[in-house]
Amino acid sequence: MARENAFYGQSGGVTAVINASACGVIETARQHPEHIVKVFAGHDGILGALTEDLIDTSLESDAAIAALKYTPGAAFGSCRYKLGSIHEQRAQYERLIEVFRAHDIRYFFYNGGGDSQDTAFKVSQISTELGEPIVCVGIPKTVDNDLTITDCSPGFGSAAKYVATSLREAAFDVAAMSRTSTKVFLLEVMGRNAGWTTAACALAAEKDGDAPHVLLLPEVVFDEGRFLAKVGETLARYGHCVIAASEGIKRPGGEFLSAGSTDAFGHEQLGGVVPLLANLIRAKLGCKCHWAVPDYLQRSARHIASETDVEQAYAVGRAAVEFAVAGKSAVMPAIRRLSDTPYRWDIIEAPLSAVANREKLLPPDFITPDGFGVSAAARRYLAPLILGEAYPPTKDGLPDYVTLRKVLAPKKLADTFAVSL
Amino acid sequence: MARENAFYGQSGGVTAVINASACGVIETARQHPEHIVKVFAGHDGILGALTEDLIDTSLESDAAIAALKYTPGAAFGSCRYKLGSIHEQRAQYERLIEVFRAHDIRYFFYNGGGDSQDTAFKVSQISTELGEPIVCVGIPKTVDNDLTITDCSPGFGSAAKYVATSLREAAFDVAAMSRTSTKVFLLEVMGRNAGWTTAACALAAEKDGDAPHVLLLPEVVFDEGRFLAKVGETLARYGHCVIAASEGIKRPGGEFLSAGSTDAFGHEQLGGVVPLLANLIRAKLGCKCHWAVPDYLQRSARHIASETDVEQAYAVGRAAVEFAVAGKSAVMPAIRRLSDTPYRWDIIEAPLSAVANREKLLPPDFITPDGFGVSAAARRYLAPLILGEAYPPTKDGLPDYVTLRKVLAPKKLADTFAVSL
Repeated sequence: MARENAFYGQSGGVTAVINASACGVIETARQHPEHIVKVFAGHDGILGALTEDLIDTSLESDAAIAALKYTPGAAFGSCRYKLGSIHEQRAQYERLIEVFRAHDIRYFFYNGGGDSQDTAFKVSQISTELGEPIVCVGIPKTVDNDLTITDCSPGFGSAAKYVATSLREAAFDVAAMSRTSTKVFLLEVMGRNAGWTTAACALAAEKDGDAPHVLLLPEVVFDEGRFLAKVGETLARYGHCVIAASEGIKRPGGEFLSAGSTDAFGHEQLGGVVPLLANLIRAKLGCKCHWAVPDYLQRSARHIASETDVEQAYAVGRAAVEFAVAGKSAVMPAIRRLSDTPYRWDIIEAPLSAVANREKLLPPDFITPDGFGVSAAARRYLAPLILGEAYPPTKDGLPDYVTLRKVLAPKKLADTFAVSL
Repeated sequence: MARENAFYGQSGGVTAVINASACGVIETARQHPEHIVKVFAGHDGILGALTEDLIDTSLESDAAIAALKYTPGAAFGSCRYKLGSIHEQRAQYERLIEVFRAHDIRYFFYNGGGDSQDTAFKVSQISTELGEPIVCVGIPKTVDNDLTITDCSPGFGSAAKYVATSLREAAFDVAAMSRTSTKVFLLEVMGRNAGWTTAACALAAEKDGDAPHVLLLPEVVFDEGRFLAKVGETLARYGHCVIAASEGIKRPGGEFLSAGSTDAFGHEQLGGVVPLLANLIRAKLGCKCHWAVPDYLQRSARHIASETDVEQAYAVGRAAVEFAVAGKSAVMPAIRRLSDTPYRWDIIEAPLSAVANREKLLPPDFITPDGFGVSAAARRYLAPLILGEAYPPTKDGLPDYVTLRKVLAPKKLADTFAVSL
């Protein structure tokens, strides 16, 4: 294979470890100068490819690239931008190929969730169709853990560790205060339609009676009466109740629970399911509630990342380059579990066609019969993913994260390309 | 001084390090068997003294007591319960003295904020009045950092480190996503009337333009027009805007900003100022916002405690016992700053009369002229308080916190005492 350049893009919501994958890609590419000359990173993912805003990562020092392994966010910028079908958006795909041709880019690495794997798959198809075959490798990432085939998605283990740690700590608080103050605490957890991160809160409990006492999973339809009864029972038994609620829980009709709130300015209030549940409990059970919505904190908390997750994120980045230089295209490195205890895993190839646009929800046997908890099988699955500490270096008492130089490569195309945001 | 027992109580909202003070008290008492036979801990603070629910800490192992140094929450239970004036609540004070007499308690340690120091002061007064003088020593604690005389309040440094770390991490997220997604991120911070914890978010910024871009301090009246203008300017300049807002910000009339919200069930919504600000920004500036309310997470996050804070919390616990066995009463160990860089401090005596029921707000020279930031003087004050890492031990990927046995001492009084909760 000839010596060519590579494109690397970060896509969708960021995680605590997506930059560890970037580190894996760039460090491994630097070890293969016989194949890859330069890695250009898209400024804000695929948008950077369309607008020819390509960050020349060869201008970043080895130390800066190494620091990506412990820096949260998306170092090159990410985007929520879906290319659409090849049929309807053909001009965009042709523009991508034009930019790649202009910059001698023959490798395309795209780091994201199910939508992003679809993008990588389509780029592979169109490039072949246009006679400019590009080696396309997807790299898995999502805190939601809803990618298929792979044992887990890099980013998830760290979010899981964050929510389980935070819930355990908050539970100590509620237990201490419940006699005269707050009796119910609710933690809102990300995950859209998938309950993986909410399920991970269960890892905070070591024995029966430990928090969390109630999980509200998006896979289980919310039933107000059954929920209040469960909270009431828990209060009677333990004197306090700790609840982890997915942002994605829905009413029997399928609408999100949080739809229809109005604030003091008369605006419809979007998001925030736990304030609503807290008000419901206050009104119906008459006890004081506190609630927390960590939102971005849970997907950015590199300070408490899972070492396992960091290693896997790096490994899929490295494997993506190894696949590419071996000429494998339209694939995604996936994590394969070899054993639970000790946790052993390796990397296999997944065809992009099998991961694009798919969504993996909690399987029914991971949920307890009453719908408010997770099974022993779920705990066996989840437990290893949060193992190990990977604290970032600190400076002045805070994590010392890197900000890259992000120098753009000179443009080679005369025309610009407008994207509607 | 004769060999007698001691009472130790935890009071008010908990912190990540109040148990480190408990550890300081109990370990130091164990080093003074010539003065202190046993430390009884109140089950839920002063309530345990009133109801004669006294935890016999001599039945806890040295290892369990040592583990308190890294365990959040309040190991013996805390309470929000104010005794009231000696005049109106004389029966309660007499009951306390009766319980203390029955259990040979001659030392009273009370660990809390301004209200709790008031309780300790009153117990000292009434015991003298009743001819049963008890050595009363307050121990400072509050994430709000609003205690007078002491350089800072144990608990604050760790909350400060948590919010500054979280804000820095979330800011990486927003910066990466702002082109196509969220442009404004709001973090809600505790502190009631005092802006110390909100001010500490400013430590996340290393240089001009770094997040947080806007602080909303409770010491500054909220002005909707000026706020929106500031956010708009920040967006124009940096493309995104990160805001730290105190839960205690008020409208010009003095009412809390969050008053008057209604949820989808038609209930008045209490708490949560950032959802409201997010809706305001969405409606007036038309950009996507995300918000986080960490609530209890910020005062329980022992996993990212400040080592300085842990050391100070332990030191005030130890000093309280040393003061007591030296016969000093109606005092509180206070932290005295000797230098900023390096941070050096020692422990001095503060009279309880001077700390009871006082509240220390951010001084005007700590706030920038526009009201949306903090001064260099504030940063000099805040910076050392978050220094140093004091990670707890972990087990199975999560902090390995201790739960005590909490065996109650046999009751010695025939009558019970009803408290209305």
